[in-house]
Amino acid sequence: MIGRHKHCIALAEYGRDDILEVLDLAVSMKEVLQRPIKKVPSLRGKSIVNLFFEASTRTRSSFEIAAKVLSADALNWTASASSVTKGETLVDTAKNLEAMRPDVLVIRHSASGAPRLVAERVGCSVVSAGDGAHEHPSQGLLDCFTLREKLGTLEGKTVAIVGDISHSRVARSDLHSMPKLGAKVRLCGPPTMIPAGVEALGATVHYDLREAVQDADAVVMLRIQHERIGDPLIPGTREYSKYWGLNAKKAEEWLKPSCVILHPGPINRGVELSPEVADGPRSVILDQVQNGVAVRMAILYLLAGGGAESEAKA
Amino acid sequence: MIGRHKHCIALAEYGRDDILEVLDLAVSMKEVLQRPIKKVPSLRGKSIVNLFFEASTRTRSSFEIAAKVLSADALNWTASASSVTKGETLVDTAKNLEAMRPDVLVIRHSASGAPRLVAERVGCSVVSAGDGAHEHPSQGLLDCFTLREKLGTLEGKTVAIVGDISHSRVARSDLHSMPKLGAKVRLCGPPTMIPAGVEALGATVHYDLREAVQDADAVVMLRIQHERIGDPLIPGTREYSKYWGLNAKKAEEWLKPSCVILHPGPINRGVELSPEVADGPRSVILDQVQNGVAVRMAILYLLAGGGAESEAKA
Amino acid sequence: MIGRHKHCIALAEYGRDDILEVLDLAVSMKEVLQRPIKKVPSLRGKSIVNLFFEASTRTRSSFEIAAKVLSADALNWTASASSVTKGETLVDTAKNLEAMRPDVLVIRHSASGAPRLVAERVGCSVVSAGDGAHEHPSQGLLDCFTLREKLGTLEGKTVAIVGDISHSRVARSDLHSMPKLGAKVRLCGPPTMIPAGVEALGATVHYDLREAVQDADAVVMLRIQHERIGDPLIPGTREYSKYWGLNAKKAEEWLKPSCVILHPGPINRGVELSPEVADGPRSVILDQVQNGVAVRMAILYLLAGGGAESEAKA
Repeated sequence: MIGRHKHCIALAEYGRDDILEVLDLAVSMKEVLQRPIKKVPSLRGKSIVNLFFEASTRTRSSFEIAAKVLSADALNWTASASSVTKGETLVDTAKNLEAMRPDVLVIRHSASGAPRLVAERVGCSVVSAGDGAHEHPSQGLLDCFTLREKLGTLEGKTVAIVGDISHSRVARSDLHSMPKLGAKVRLCGPPTMIPAGVEALGATVHYDLREAVQDADAVVMLRIQHERIGDPLIPGTREYSKYWGLNAKKAEEWLKPSCVILHPGPINRGVELSPEVADGPRSVILDQVQNGVAVRMAILYLLAGGGAESEAKA
Repeated sequence: MIGRHKHCIALAEYGRDDILEVLDLAVSMKEVLQRPIKKVPSLRGKSIVNLFFEASTRTRSSFEIAAKVLSADALNWTASASSVTKGETLVDTAKNLEAMRPDVLVIRHSASGAPRLVAERVGCSVVSAGDGAHEHPSQGLLDCFTLREKLGTLEGKTVAIVGDISHSRVARSDLHSMPKLGAKVRLCGPPTMIPAGVEALGATVHYDLREAVQDADAVVMLRIQHERIGDPLIPGTREYSKYWGLNAKKAEEWLKPSCVILHPGPINRGVELSPEVADGPRSVILDQVQNGVAVRMAILYLLAGGGAESEAKA
Repeated sequence: MIGRHKHCIALAEYGRDDILEVLDLAVSMKEVLQRPIKKVPSLRGKSIVNLFFEASTRTRSSFEIAAKVLSADALNWTASASSVTKGETLVDTAKNLEAMRPDVLVIRHSASGAPRLVAERVGCSVVSAGDGAHEHPSQGLLDCFTLREKLGTLEGKTVAIVGDISHSRVARSDLHSMPKLGAKVRLCGPPTMIPAGVEALGATVHYDLREAVQDADAVVMLRIQHERIGDPLIPGTREYSKYWGLNAKKAEEWLKPSCVILHPGPINRGVELSPEVADGPRSVILDQVQNGVAVRMAILYLLAGGGAESEAKA
């Protein structure tokens, strides 16, 4: 359980305390990752199933490593090789997997709401690893973790999120978590990429990058997802890069010296970020990756009921 | 060893005692699956290789989970990513794998007889996870296990198997096991889907569903395999569903109250089974899935030589 | 560390002592593989990532088994399912993986030099599992191991390597290791398949198979890689087989009785080797496969810092 939550599907329904519970535990988990022997017996005999309907070695591997460091068994179930090609429904697949007695199902799906649908039908815990343009809660949590680690706190800080806000489940999960920890969020991107009414969630909207990043403590640069959006909405990658990408010159002139840069990866180098910025001193992108493992360890630990019982046996 | 068998390839060659040995052990294995800590050290240091030439996440995962619960190492070798695309022969692939010292090779192949061919050439145990239209022995065993669990015994019971009998390795393995435990088997389907001479195996043949299921204690509804059979033999899915599918009305009117419904999955909802029946109180389909893990644990344990030696070390 | 090497990328830079360090340790590792319980805790809590940009279940599985026998966690990252399809650069992929804290990255890539490029950018150890037509060091080491096992020593022995020398990373790694252990190497193949100036590495060049294998103690038959080379260089497989393939008659007439035959696999039966020879008494091809696991165990053990620390904890 995370707070009173059996699942980790949407940060929209997580309160400040729920988020802090994960972040605080993730601090200890990160310490485990730094050890020469990266293994604790906390989830021995527990089993985690990765059910991915969209290709994502990055996120899947992060969950798989998180499971293995905690001594859980991890099983990968990829859609291309699965019964899905034989026409099985999502719920049938999930119920079949559930019958094999996993403790946590980690689901990525192109349809918003798919993890929720599954969670309502199965008995085990469900973690969303990203669903459509809805949420990607573990990414939101690892972004918060990274900001807290780098800035000390999110209280009173300003975070600019830049890019295709409409199609970004990362932006949505950030928006549903950072303000709860006291941060002000600014959203920035081409007008066609910002959903109407998003201010209602407490963010301000900016179409000018310079204005959006001014005095910001952190900038989250989103990935332009070539594969996700239709042509008409994209201004062309050169034009996008010119107006909404960050290069060394803009970073130098527009960002305050302490401002850090996040990106959920994989980076389109030369589009949303120039290589100098992606690899530069402000970039905390690889910290995000490592923190992702720590945060996922915390999520799995809390949901799979690690603790006294398993430790006693281990 | 299962009885005097080093392999698990065809229930045709298994006697009543061989089958009961697996089923009895599977009862204990299922108990392990119910524990909060689903891990026993029985096969620690043993290695199980899944060599799948046909996509089947479902069966592969079942074997993989079974191996991991017993603390064996599981390795997945899928044909699409393998040397097969470079023209290597089946036997070469298997002998190469054998040289890496697995204890059990689990093989699925589209050609009937492939697991036997491999078993004759390698030193380790071979388990068929389904070969062509030949057999799928672990499915037959899990069907028997489920019937025994639900009906108490198979002695004197009547089981109707409905669908494309000709192409079904499930039907074949059921037919080679259930009668040995005392059950009477009825086969039912369109005339084009029932092989000539199958009565010689002790089953009765029916072309009318109502007649086949009358007073039956269990009905095994087979999956219509769109990908497997050519058009001319299929009466069209609507027509198939009308004459050989089960919906709530037919189940209510034709089945006796205690009759249970099995299906090897994945289900074509609305074709061989209506959703109301698949998810209804008679359905033991998800029990089959869980029992599948337990039965495969028993098979792997018996063939990989679990027991005293490994437990002493664990 | 292997000698003073943090990585295992090219045998060209390994000295005689470096090679012998791996081979000597692999003897103990092979002994572990022969046990009924094939598991030692040496690399418990270490993590090995297989990052394969070319399909190779064979080599990947060998590394995966090697890792698991040593109790390390193994993670498979295949390019087809990865961010590579989203346009991520090789170095970004590797740095992302590194951030997840693996101890060893095992890389196969179609571009010569890819593992070196990665090794220069990441903090962990890198093992090449084959890069372009450059090197395949673990194959070179397992070939040396197998020769030492079968011939007692390589000192003063003659090894003929036959086939497409130009495109073969196996030939290159053999050539950079066997002479360091005292063997004389002869290269043989069609003139179009032997690179100019290769004599500078200490080998002699032969276009006639009979001459190349005369009095040889071992023959390494390379695989004709249909998928790798353009038509014009291939003499046609029938012609190739006639002039540079080995069949039972040639082996009988041309090879000295004690001469052994190696092949990196997978074999094109009937092209470079006839089935009688591939499966005959001279063939040590399956020994090579098993020795490959032992040699990879040794490499991983040395690079992942197995030993006192982990054994104390285990």
